Amino acid sequence: MRRIAMLAVCFGLIATPVLAQSKIEIQQLNDQWSAAFNKGDAAAVAAMYAQDAYMLPAGAPMVKGRAAIEGFVKQITQDLGDFKLTTLDVKPLGPDAALEIGTATFKHKGQAGAVKYAVVWQKEGGSWKLLQDIWNSDK
Amino acid sequence: MRRIAMLAVCFGLIATPVLAQSKIEIQQLNDQWSAAFNKGDAAAVAAMYAQDAYMLPAGAPMVKGRAAIEGFVKQITQDLGDFKLTTLDVKPLGPDAALEIGTATFKHKGQAGAVKYAVVWQKEGGSWKLLQDIWNSDK
Repeated sequence: MRRIAMLAVCFGLIATPVLAQSKIEIQQLNDQWSAAFNKGDAAAVAAMYAQDAYMLPAGAPMVKGRAAIEGFVKQITQDLGDFKLTTLDVKPLGPDAALEIGTATFKHKGQAGAVKYAVVWQKEGGSWKLLQDIWNSDK
Repeated sequence: MRRIAMLAVCFGLIATPVLAQSKIEIQQLNDQWSAAFNKGDAAAVAAMYAQDAYMLPAGAPMVKGRAAIEGFVKQITQDLGDFKLTTLDVKPLGPDAALEIGTATFKHKGQAGAVKYAVVWQKEGGSWKLLQDIWNSDK
């Protein structure tokens, strides 16, 4: 009985933090993304995307693949900065993929802006890469 | 040798159509979504979403969960119709999830409109349900 109780405690301790851990891990990746973007380091931003990733920007045509994403990021970092990403929810999609829902604030030519976003993270060679990145505005 | 060649042929025959098959299957689900939406059948549209799905509309706050999605769809079907969804790419994310990238055309109060979208499909009780639905415009 005590053994079962111990097991239950262990499962409780393990089961909850798995998701909490994912959320913390994903938030850290987002902080890394923002730091790179805010420095205008398009190569470091692009390195966080999967080789065949899709970026679907609000207000611009879709961009496919890491190289094209680097070119696009290089272009938009000229007017955009001060990014802060907030992970709201992380849903695991099997062992090697996860859906993240979040919000972002930024400055566009000095003006404050905000969007909501949905990204899909996928493990590529053991590390999480962005496979899908899409955002839009509430307004 | 002949056996290896046969195996290679078999793999070739099997491997390519799996993805092609997914794309056809997903396109059929999209056609089902459009048919329901264009009839103004918000309940049938909502039934295609996972219980805890996220809808992130362009120009409106995010909507969470099937019931809230039904309410939102009911509201927007009043001004929107003539939807046509086109699946551009499907990427499997493990056995029970897939990312889809596509485009949609529609009429908003009689005016033609177009968006690009990213959706995540997840198997729920053996059938594909929308877990994430987000779109935006190129302009």
